[in-house]
Amino acid sequence: MRLSSLLGPDLRAVLESDPESLRDALEEFHAEDIAEILGDLEPADRVALMQVLTPELAASVMERISPEQQVSFLRAISAADGAQVLSEMDPDDLVDVLQELEHEERAPLLTELERFDVEAAEEARELVLYGPETAGGLMTTEYVALPPQTKVWEAIEAVRRAADEGEVESIYYVYVCGYGEKLLGVVSLRDLILGDPGQELEHVMTEKVVHVGPLDDQEKVADIIARYDLSAVPVVDSDFALLGMVTVDDVVDVVIEEATEDAQMMAGMMPLEDSYFATGLFEFVWKRGVWLVLLFLGQLLTATVMEVNQLTLQRTMELALFIPLIISSGGNVGSQSSTLIIRALAIGEIESADWLRVVTRELSVGFLLGLVLGAMGFLRGYIAGDTVAPWALAAVVSTSILAIVVLSAVVGSVLPLVIKRAGLDPAVSSTPFIASVVDVLGLMVYFGIAQYVFSMTA
Amino acid sequence: MRLSSLLGPDLRAVLESDPESLRDALEEFHAEDIAEILGDLEPADRVALMQVLTPELAASVMERISPEQQVSFLRAISAADGAQVLSEMDPDDLVDVLQELEHEERAPLLTELERFDVEAAEEARELVLYGPETAGGLMTTEYVALPPQTKVWEAIEAVRRAADEGEVESIYYVYVCGYGEKLLGVVSLRDLILGDPGQELEHVMTEKVVHVGPLDDQEKVADIIARYDLSAVPVVDSDFALLGMVTVDDVVDVVIEEATEDAQMMAGMMPLEDSYFATGLFEFVWKRGVWLVLLFLGQLLTATVMEVNQLTLQRTMELALFIPLIISSGGNVGSQSSTLIIRALAIGEIESADWLRVVTRELSVGFLLGLVLGAMGFLRGYIAGDTVAPWALAAVVSTSILAIVVLSAVVGSVLPLVIKRAGLDPAVSSTPFIASVVDVLGLMVYFGIAQYVFSMTA
Repeated sequence: MRLSSLLGPDLRAVLESDPESLRDALEEFHAEDIAEILGDLEPADRVALMQVLTPELAASVMERISPEQQVSFLRAISAADGAQVLSEMDPDDLVDVLQELEHEERAPLLTELERFDVEAAEEARELVLYGPETAGGLMTTEYVALPPQTKVWEAIEAVRRAADEGEVESIYYVYVCGYGEKLLGVVSLRDLILGDPGQELEHVMTEKVVHVGPLDDQEKVADIIARYDLSAVPVVDSDFALLGMVTVDDVVDVVIEEATEDAQMMAGMMPLEDSYFATGLFEFVWKRGVWLVLLFLGQLLTATVMEVNQLTLQRTMELALFIPLIISSGGNVGSQSSTLIIRALAIGEIESADWLRVVTRELSVGFLLGLVLGAMGFLRGYIAGDTVAPWALAAVVSTSILAIVVLSAVVGSVLPLVIKRAGLDPAVSSTPFIASVVDVLGLMVYFGIAQYVFSMTA
Repeated sequence: MRLSSLLGPDLRAVLESDPESLRDALEEFHAEDIAEILGDLEPADRVALMQVLTPELAASVMERISPEQQVSFLRAISAADGAQVLSEMDPDDLVDVLQELEHEERAPLLTELERFDVEAAEEARELVLYGPETAGGLMTTEYVALPPQTKVWEAIEAVRRAADEGEVESIYYVYVCGYGEKLLGVVSLRDLILGDPGQELEHVMTEKVVHVGPLDDQEKVADIIARYDLSAVPVVDSDFALLGMVTVDDVVDVVIEEATEDAQMMAGMMPLEDSYFATGLFEFVWKRGVWLVLLFLGQLLTATVMEVNQLTLQRTMELALFIPLIISSGGNVGSQSSTLIIRALAIGEIESADWLRVVTRELSVGFLLGLVLGAMGFLRGYIAGDTVAPWALAAVVSTSILAIVVLSAVVGSVLPLVIKRAGLDPAVSSTPFIASVVDVLGLMVYFGIAQYVFSMTA
């Protein structure tokens, strides 16, 4: 049962009659749950409910609703009210919201934001310049950085103070900086708690710090955090000066987002930026249509191949019966192979350099799968034989399936490797793309084998 | 350049002549990097190198190599040596390794493990019973749990002691338990640092604890940690007694693993359990072949549809030319729709109850896409007209494309919703599955329209 169905009907009435007690009631909920309730409300109710919340809770909720809901809320209220909520948000989430807005909408909010928090406004102005899918766009500037001579007990005090003032998002690492903000090392909260209180940070810190650059893609950042099991990774510039840090909780979202983008690319479309329903109809048609039109143009070649082989087809009508069956078998095998390789590349299981091992593996797998499907095709072909000898048709169908399955396994596995080698995202070698290539090749193989076998038996 | 190419040629020599200095050199590397080097070595070299490492470092490396490498290492060394490395591992990783082994191999290791760490061996015996993809299989039992009357300063001391003894994996939460291990609340390390040292935990703790059950699927656990931005989530039994906790770093791995499994299912195959190269040839053929055979059996219907319509096809040979083009357009659109819905369901953007909105959206998108592709089909059909009037063939091809594209968008989007409603994983409504359904329906639509139009013009 949805919480909103409890709230729904009477919400307006309560909002008007007794906003105080509604606020108190909502204070008991987790911000995530309030965000879910909001998702089920009409936009007007959503804004009204958000305005009832304390700015702190509203900020927590803002961090959890969809970008479209964030934008429509900010557009519905005054810049001053908006800035008050924004000032309570984590800086990285604040920047994400600003990046969703038009440039003209951002300016008044930033001006108002200065009244609440000059520093936050200044930082936001800087961070908003990084692309939303880069380390710079993901990072927060709320971290604790201390000079190398700081004593462990002083560092604990500093962490306590920063956390107390709500200034830092994650207190699990202290970064040791010196010589002009240069990142010298990292000390975990665990190291601090275990350390001798009188020691200096430079003697406790780990000097080999795993780090990223501000322009690194979010996928790389996620990969590094996952690979090294980190709670956060520092972002440094080319002079190794500390700019910010990306925390693991942001990375979980990135991994989910990237998986969705990859899946959409692998299904032959441009990835959506918003959720399914939040994407406008024409953007939807555009992102799907571009690829469909390109694939259609490629598929036109199948009609040409058929035209070229029209005589063979007229002489042996039974050949036509098996065209969908044969090309789809190729498409299915190619789709398996390309997906296996695309995912294995994405998680670093294999590299482009492994292409020979991949081809060897796909050749043997394709051969075995082709034997199984070919045997089934032999039976069906034998039954259908009419104007040609049943066994001849059976031979054509089964050997074509075998050849096309092997070919598809190799094409499906090699194309992503080639595309990756060319510096592109291998996920563009989508299932529909592989299927199109395989359809054209498959028809050529099919008619080639048919002509050969029938000329032998004529 | 791979590190292994530096090490490779001389590795054996160094291993024999000067293992001490090799050990010292490797101590400087991050365990993750050593794991990567190992991945490029021959199995025998891998075992030899692992044995040079200190048990602590070997344990860190073990946590980062593939399950197959873990198993082959343990099989190559004595149970006593193996148990020494295992005793240094995090309990949840230790259990993962044990789950990879055969029952007969586990027993001697557990017996030896008791010599190093009785408690770890006992816990492992319990945890190994949970499925590897459940919260119970993911959780660690190394957490700090304290009674509600504990003072904040005592809790900090307890955390410090536990971390000092290397007993806990994550010290970011303290669980407050009482009345027979019942989970009463949670206190973050941040709360402890900020709290008044003299206060009791029951006055500092958060009582509404987000939690999971030991048999909950790992996907659910990942979803909860991501949704509430947690560092860890406690696992409780039906009496709310605390059993363990799952930390966010394990969840990042789960999310990546699940994305790969989903992608493989969506490409029409059973998900692999091991990496691409680690999967045996016959398991590979089996996991891909089962689906291919089922899809092939379904696709046999296309041959039957063609047989039924053989007369129409003989009368108008041009119809055959467009069969691959038309069915693949349907397949491509259906693949986009199903992927969009499968991912939107996976990340909770939409629910089965939204089916009417989904159908409405897909009908309009399908109609617009069908118009574009249909127009292109009209041109190609007009050119190909020979035994029939060009405009008649053009009309048949274009209206068929329009109809099939709309049909595919609806089928592709509704099937995952139906499958989800039936309690199955919507990812089984894979691209090849949708394509097969759409191929059969598409041929029926195509021949139906052709017969109608040609009978009008005859």
